Amino acid sequence: MLRPVGKRRRPDGVRGARVTVVILAGGIGGARFALGARDVLPTNALTIVGNVGDDLEHWGLAVSPDIDTILYTLAGRVGPLGWGVVEDSRSALGVVSALGGPDWFILGDADVGLHLVRTERLRAGATLSSVVEDVGRRWRVGATILPATDDRLRTVIVTADGEVGFQEWFVGRRAAPPVVALRLDGVAEARPAPGVLEAIGAARRIVLAPSNPFLSLDPILAVEGIRASIAARRDDVVAVSPIIAGRAVKGPLGEMLDSLGHERSALGVARYLAPLCGTFVLDEADRDLAGAVEALGMRAIVTATLMVDDATRRALARAVLEG
Amino acid sequence: MLRPVGKRRRPDGVRGARVTVVILAGGIGGARFALGARDVLPTNALTIVGNVGDDLEHWGLAVSPDIDTILYTLAGRVGPLGWGVVEDSRSALGVVSALGGPDWFILGDADVGLHLVRTERLRAGATLSSVVEDVGRRWRVGATILPATDDRLRTVIVTADGEVGFQEWFVGRRAAPPVVALRLDGVAEARPAPGVLEAIGAARRIVLAPSNPFLSLDPILAVEGIRASIAARRDDVVAVSPIIAGRAVKGPLGEMLDSLGHERSALGVARYLAPLCGTFVLDEADRDLAGAVEALGMRAIVTATLMVDDATRRALARAVLEG
Repeated sequence: MLRPVGKRRRPDGVRGARVTVVILAGGIGGARFALGARDVLPTNALTIVGNVGDDLEHWGLAVSPDIDTILYTLAGRVGPLGWGVVEDSRSALGVVSALGGPDWFILGDADVGLHLVRTERLRAGATLSSVVEDVGRRWRVGATILPATDDRLRTVIVTADGEVGFQEWFVGRRAAPPVVALRLDGVAEARPAPGVLEAIGAARRIVLAPSNPFLSLDPILAVEGIRASIAARRDDVVAVSPIIAGRAVKGPLGEMLDSLGHERSALGVARYLAPLCGTFVLDEADRDLAGAVEALGMRAIVTATLMVDDATRRALARAVLEG
Repeated sequence: MLRPVGKRRRPDGVRGARVTVVILAGGIGGARFALGARDVLPTNALTIVGNVGDDLEHWGLAVSPDIDTILYTLAGRVGPLGWGVVEDSRSALGVVSALGGPDWFILGDADVGLHLVRTERLRAGATLSSVVEDVGRRWRVGATILPATDDRLRTVIVTADGEVGFQEWFVGRRAAPPVVALRLDGVAEARPAPGVLEAIGAARRIVLAPSNPFLSLDPILAVEGIRASIAARRDDVVAVSPIIAGRAVKGPLGEMLDSLGHERSALGVARYLAPLCGTFVLDEADRDLAGAVEALGMRAIVTATLMVDDATRRALARAVLEG
């Protein structure tokens, strides 16, 4: 356990007894890092600000893949691939598929239960953040999970062949068409969800989780006020490289660094995030990049960043939070 | 197999090669009778007009319990209690319940798949009848299933304590509060679904299935033009008693006959349906009522009406269709 920091008056609008750490997280890597951090921090010391750019309406249901991966991961319910519910059945999907409905996006049956609840509550006027708060409390996730915004924000992928919604690109087309740009639909109107800016302002440490900076972090940072609030805390912000030895641990980040004109390495990510964070965490495999990172005006931490089990997740969380 | 009738030009709007038999059906009894009739009739000789008064919106889904029981029964997918999908899981329900959502109405996971498809298509502007036609075709039900209406029609139960929606009364309150009247919300605007009146007009025989006359048949008959079109064919209309020896085979019909002021017997039902049908089918246990039925101006057929397996369903269908 990290030693709890001294009593800090909690700002209005922030739930939880003591806000000490904020993690900005997208998909699987972010959720796994958040799990490690939750485990080594005092109860309710953690706030996770999650990406909603990947959200979609599917089968008429409001689906929030990144937020749900965080919920499922912290609740100990996540499937072995890092998304969905462990040992979930797919009976509804089977029927939808047999009836000619869209079956390119996999929703398990228990997962559908969550989406049904969310969709109904949103339709009745609830905010996404209030739904996530309620689910997190019922599932005892031991952390505050906040969507970056309660407003509609959608990541649109721009390819040489035109624009396509994120999930259609990522799942439907297996992330194959090269990304030439990203657009955030709704970003001009999106406001931070209640508690987001307050949590960032009050945090002892802010972590940019090992998530895709374009797909997972940018849609959070782009919400009005969030990038500035992070930049204002730069000395307390630490980013964990999602690239190890030139390869993304998961997902299409390697190809995206190329196609978006960045160096395909942890250093490419470090350069991209340098305006926001005072510390950058490199994997031991990238030890030789530490000097280049420090030349960008950041402290470099070198540690094992690959999270494969509870022990490695917690060790990384300790290194990041104590380093 | 019944001998096919001679070629009959099929009216516009009626699907299927040859319309010879129309069944008006509500819930489980109606679906089981329809299954027997389907099995003894030539392919596509059967049209079933199904009740939609029991329909509800649940978890944001458009659910049509009676229509679905007919679909599942004819598709060989129905659960052992006569509703839902056989061996269906309840993972979505478990999550909805754990998250504080409504869990008084059971929807299995595969069942949810059907509701998701229907809800999406209705929202996109499709009619209920077009959705049911597509599902029936894909599942090879071997009959035309038509909802009585594509318009919104809801059975409302009037009790001494006020009005309550049908499913809330039937499932939520276990059909306990006595029914003092029934009201059909939307009936003034409801029009028959395409093909309903044509099928009735062209049918060689029309069967009022052994369904609750108040809850299953009346909401069909109340749709503009249907009652008159049935009455105009009275000589070819046969009703099967849903009451055997003074007891309803299933459901709350016995209590309803009492509370609505009818005799609690097959004769009570016969009196209620006499304006519509020229033939009334009694169970062998009610053989002594045959004279009283004939005194109402109906032919009486006495046969075994309890359907417990394929053989008894088919035997009843033969007796009803050939008698």
